[in-house]
Amino acid sequence: MAKAPVLTPRADDFPRWYQDLITKAELADNGPVRGTMVIRPYGYGLWERMQQEMDTRIKETGTQNAYFPLLIPQSYLTREAEHVEGFAPELAVVTHGGGKELEEPAVVRPTSEMIINASFSKWVQSYRDLPLLINQWANVVRWELRPRLFLRTSEFLWQEGHTAHATYEEARDFAAHIHREVYEDFMANVLAMDVVPGRKTVKERFAGAINTLTLEGMMGDGKALQMATSHELGQNFAKAFNTRYLSRDGSQELVWQTSWGSTTRMIGALVMMHGDDHGLRVPPRLAQTQVVVLAIKGDEAVLAKVRELGDRLKAAGVRVRVDDRTDIPFGRRAVDWELKGVPVRVEVGPRDLENGTAMLVRRIPGGKAPVAIDSLVPLLPSILEEDQALLLTQSRERRESRTAEVATPDEAIEAAVSGGWARIPWSTLGEEGEARLGEHAVTVRCLVAEDGSVPDSYDAPGNVAVVARAY
Amino acid sequence: MAKAPVLTPRADDFPRWYQDLITKAELADNGPVRGTMVIRPYGYGLWERMQQEMDTRIKETGTQNAYFPLLIPQSYLTREAEHVEGFAPELAVVTHGGGKELEEPAVVRPTSEMIINASFSKWVQSYRDLPLLINQWANVVRWELRPRLFLRTSEFLWQEGHTAHATYEEARDFAAHIHREVYEDFMANVLAMDVVPGRKTVKERFAGAINTLTLEGMMGDGKALQMATSHELGQNFAKAFNTRYLSRDGSQELVWQTSWGSTTRMIGALVMMHGDDHGLRVPPRLAQTQVVVLAIKGDEAVLAKVRELGDRLKAAGVRVRVDDRTDIPFGRRAVDWELKGVPVRVEVGPRDLENGTAMLVRRIPGGKAPVAIDSLVPLLPSILEEDQALLLTQSRERRESRTAEVATPDEAIEAAVSGGWARIPWSTLGEEGEARLGEHAVTVRCLVAEDGSVPDSYDAPGNVAVVARAY
Repeated sequence: MAKAPVLTPRADDFPRWYQDLITKAELADNGPVRGTMVIRPYGYGLWERMQQEMDTRIKETGTQNAYFPLLIPQSYLTREAEHVEGFAPELAVVTHGGGKELEEPAVVRPTSEMIINASFSKWVQSYRDLPLLINQWANVVRWELRPRLFLRTSEFLWQEGHTAHATYEEARDFAAHIHREVYEDFMANVLAMDVVPGRKTVKERFAGAINTLTLEGMMGDGKALQMATSHELGQNFAKAFNTRYLSRDGSQELVWQTSWGSTTRMIGALVMMHGDDHGLRVPPRLAQTQVVVLAIKGDEAVLAKVRELGDRLKAAGVRVRVDDRTDIPFGRRAVDWELKGVPVRVEVGPRDLENGTAMLVRRIPGGKAPVAIDSLVPLLPSILEEDQALLLTQSRERRESRTAEVATPDEAIEAAVSGGWARIPWSTLGEEGEARLGEHAVTVRCLVAEDGSVPDSYDAPGNVAVVARAY
Repeated sequence: MAKAPVLTPRADDFPRWYQDLITKAELADNGPVRGTMVIRPYGYGLWERMQQEMDTRIKETGTQNAYFPLLIPQSYLTREAEHVEGFAPELAVVTHGGGKELEEPAVVRPTSEMIINASFSKWVQSYRDLPLLINQWANVVRWELRPRLFLRTSEFLWQEGHTAHATYEEARDFAAHIHREVYEDFMANVLAMDVVPGRKTVKERFAGAINTLTLEGMMGDGKALQMATSHELGQNFAKAFNTRYLSRDGSQELVWQTSWGSTTRMIGALVMMHGDDHGLRVPPRLAQTQVVVLAIKGDEAVLAKVRELGDRLKAAGVRVRVDDRTDIPFGRRAVDWELKGVPVRVEVGPRDLENGTAMLVRRIPGGKAPVAIDSLVPLLPSILEEDQALLLTQSRERRESRTAEVATPDEAIEAAVSGGWARIPWSTLGEEGEARLGEHAVTVRCLVAEDGSVPDSYDAPGNVAVVARAY
């Protein structure tokens, strides 16, 4: 490490550390229109890996990808009352197209329930067409007054799933399946993130849903981030668009629907959950580059060795990159890979070659040690898995150590304001207590059952509210 | 086949056949805002495969993916004079955001040269930062007065590459490399499309480019479709955004740039190049489903056999789907797979089982024959490759048989108007002749050298103009 810290230390100023890291690890820049974002290649590479892992899991549920228009007639938004109330303040409106004022303005999609139901109502005719399971990868626009890169941007990238089912039970079960088997599985097993699965309170529900399931993660400063949500929409949108099917017994029935989404915000979560004062730490299973092999100097033997090692690691299934850019000082490259959080660096110089060793630098636990070059290929896959597991453990331990069991709303507020989470019986807090939290910018992140499972209902006895400040 | 044709025959009404096919094969629907498009799962599956194949080829050039904002400050568009003139009539303009009128309207990107140069001018400092090779997969909006699904839509999906280089020669060579090694290779070897690589005339160049390379395909009605383009931008955008680098000798130099794009229009080309009166014919290397194994009846032994066959074909690396939806009449399913153009159907019924055979139906050459079930696994991969090659041959033969060598602009017009292409020496046609073609809605699709290669310049001696009506 250079003598002056490359990043503002987290303890000094967490938001500034976050911004420093995003910039110096070359994850993203601000775009010229307020609140928009340029996702740089290294940041986009994280998103591409997230997409691959999520897309596989989504397709395993039988869901197919499709694409719906960016522009939605303004009148559509008003068809579902709660939905329009939720989104109206955030809309970007196209009033001119092709050099003329439009007869009806179009909104840039903030989410696609409306436009997708316009199609669903045509595609669904009979019970044979159900369940209809659709996902799209797309950009959406929600005008943001206090933007922050990845966390709150006026445009972001996401996947949004939209499904229609014959019965309430099927829709409920599907939303729950996505919540746990797609989102939580991906977050725990790829992102190495400890997340709490739960149910939103009525106040915190998605605009137009009858139930919202969420995954909440604790960031490095003890605040919460909503990582992904899965909604039961009931028949609200089906009514608005008259999406009906012919049942087996010949009657016309409204479908039951779900929607569910996860966004580029997960990149921000990755930074805030796993980052440290030296930069990002990317979980090995997510990393586009798991191992970087660095030539310390532009010595012919060194260059030959790093390239050979790169080929061997690649053949062993490791996602490896060879850094032979010896016209750039070694120290600068080492700091850069540290900032970018590549899990393992293998550094090779002329002296290492003489000893038959390389310096193995592990970004996640930290520390470096010389190892025999010939042992690297068998060694690295298990090191990567070990470090993957360590990140998950660290994030779980942080949450556990910074979560307080409390008995009163005041204690909950105090815990949240001082940078942690609180757990309080929902029967103690209630909607009145929830309103009081709001006065201190504290919210109920989710409700969980006593045994940690997701409650069957909002007001089930034994529900515990998880309370925090949130991004 | 059903007795009444499922589609309007091509010979009767080609545009209507196209629309029928898009609808009945469930490729796409019209969106509610004029000119927008809903890409249905089967159509989107074609796009996903195109993306996978293209993305691999793009990354092999050293290009990285990134993402730039949808919304561009309106003032940016005016910085490059030809560019704004080219795009101004097609812009969608956001005037309101977050409930307020914006101080400066934002345009929805019609292409991203402008916003990407705003980043490039910050990212490029020294010759060490070059070449900078960036691609993005995104949606763009170009207001369309006469929309047609996939071919001309107000919103479409594409990839757009943007690169910056130290010298003119490097930029020129990179644009040419993308043109042939990415686009032409993909079209010939995956899409099975005969395409003519050439150079655009000055009149037909991209707005803001100094040279546009194109690939032109002949559709089933003899008209041309521009399949993808690769542009040399010279220093036009570098000047507009002051994108400079510190050269090795310490001077500040403008970069040389390229941009290149291919779009969901390729799905339209797929339909019009390979489709027949029974539906689409998907090239096996592109197909998400290469082989569908159909159970003719819901007999237990039949169902067991089709599932077993599906598993064996999958294990052999064939992209296979089992159709055991025996609650839908067999005939309807067979017509549907024919419409969708799945290359091979394997049909299994109780009588086939008795004989140890299945009916093998090949969509591309047409025709059906019983084959021993046990021979299918070794047989199918070579059949798929044979049919892939046949599609390419058919498209080349069509172009060759419908292209006339002509000596005068009148003959060129006649050939184009009667549904074919003409080749005429550019020295005979010239810009005056090109203007005359325009009066008959005929254009120079590209210039090619006498030996079929791409000419080094617009006015190289021996250049031949390829002339046609175009979509």
